[in-house]
Amino acid sequence: MQINRYEHPLNEKVRIYLRLEYLIRQMTHASQLNDQWQHQVFFRALFDLLEILDQIQLKGELAKDLDKQRDKLKSWLNIEGVDQAALLELLDQLEATHHQLLTASRLGQALREDRFLGSIKQRFSIPGGSCCFDLPALHHWLHLPLAHKQSNMKGWLQHIHELTTALNLWLRLVRESSHFQPQVARGGFFQHDADDACLLRLDICPSHGVYPMISGHRSRFAVRFLPFEEGAAIAEAIEFKIAIC
Amino acid sequence: MQINRYEHPLNEKVRIYLRLEYLIRQMTHASQLNDQWQHQVFFRALFDLLEILDQIQLKGELAKDLDKQRDKLKSWLNIEGVDQAALLELLDQLEATHHQLLTASRLGQALREDRFLGSIKQRFSIPGGSCCFDLPALHHWLHLPLAHKQSNMKGWLQHIHELTTALNLWLRLVRESSHFQPQVARGGFFQHDADDACLLRLDICPSHGVYPMISGHRSRFAVRFLPFEEGAAIAEAIEFKIAIC
Repeated sequence: MQINRYEHPLNEKVRIYLRLEYLIRQMTHASQLNDQWQHQVFFRALFDLLEILDQIQLKGELAKDLDKQRDKLKSWLNIEGVDQAALLELLDQLEATHHQLLTASRLGQALREDRFLGSIKQRFSIPGGSCCFDLPALHHWLHLPLAHKQSNMKGWLQHIHELTTALNLWLRLVRESSHFQPQVARGGFFQHDADDACLLRLDICPSHGVYPMISGHRSRFAVRFLPFEEGAAIAEAIEFKIAIC
Repeated sequence: MQINRYEHPLNEKVRIYLRLEYLIRQMTHASQLNDQWQHQVFFRALFDLLEILDQIQLKGELAKDLDKQRDKLKSWLNIEGVDQAALLELLDQLEATHHQLLTASRLGQALREDRFLGSIKQRFSIPGGSCCFDLPALHHWLHLPLAHKQSNMKGWLQHIHELTTALNLWLRLVRESSHFQPQVARGGFFQHDADDACLLRLDICPSHGVYPMISGHRSRFAVRFLPFEEGAAIAEAIEFKIAIC
């Protein structure tokens, strides 16, 4: 049975983390393809990522969040029934990721200073602004051998490697911190305590024909299920699963 | 031997036509694929297209341009050596395209009024703004069966069918109005009379390692070839071909 998974951040920081993860996933995926328009996805995601990094001081925040996860995990040391070898390995991984993140140069700086990226960045915000007459240098690049282009894209991704590793690890630990519980929405509505959580994850079968609009913060949240097709009826009881992380 | 083709508009209208053609090509291509991020290309191109259509009254201009092409072709009627059957067929096609364009409703109007498109449009301009928590309705749509999504995209493309047909025909006639001539740039530079042309087309072998920066208007244009790799030397003589349409 097909299940659609929705994730919703309960604070601004997690909202940014999810956006960055989403952009890096796009870049990584696009860097492996050879579709003629795939570069649009890659460059647009890269420039969006740089714009977000310009707006916030992410490095310190993310390092602090990794620290908090480490403290949390340390409280499991020497507790019976906990796989101590796996726990120690995870703590080492956190330590290394934290160190690499803090010692990395300013996030995205090498991408900002890249001559080619700098030469095409501005035009990308114009509607249809990446035409060959707008960006002849890009047009030349697009016709380079695939291996050359993929190597460039790999190199650009490498410049944000420490960010990617730290984000992925932190989000993985947060996602693994809770389990999915079955719930029922009555009249398309559900609300619950958020228990100081930062992320909601919701699984629902698409056959219900609805999608969730989630609102909330760390103390309480509400889910309203809306019909995808305008005017469609909503079942009195909608079963779904939710994890409060 | 691989050849890179560059096109450069010599007036603002052709600039817009080329942008629209480029966006429609992206939409058409993306509508046929099933890559998980392809929708990014499709929707972004669609919203860019609508933004351009909002800014200008395109329909009348394009109809006038089709008219001018028709007048030009009519001057070839009854001239010896001209394939009259082919000419008449082309004139019919111009007539039909012109009529369909003028009788179509406001360009892009059905797309502007589409409920689903309207619900996702705003977020697409935010960096990373098409995350699943920004656009749960889009997230639901993305998990619909492929045939359903492709049928939607086909339908949206159908709404701009008259524009697509008219643009393609006009650009085809302009492109076919001239032939490529071999030329040589000395010291990376070339200039020439534009002879009231509206479009330049330039073919160059990528092995030169250069791309053209073209500037000009309907009376005269200049091409400066720049090295793609920073600081690379440029050959004293660069062979290329150009069509002045």
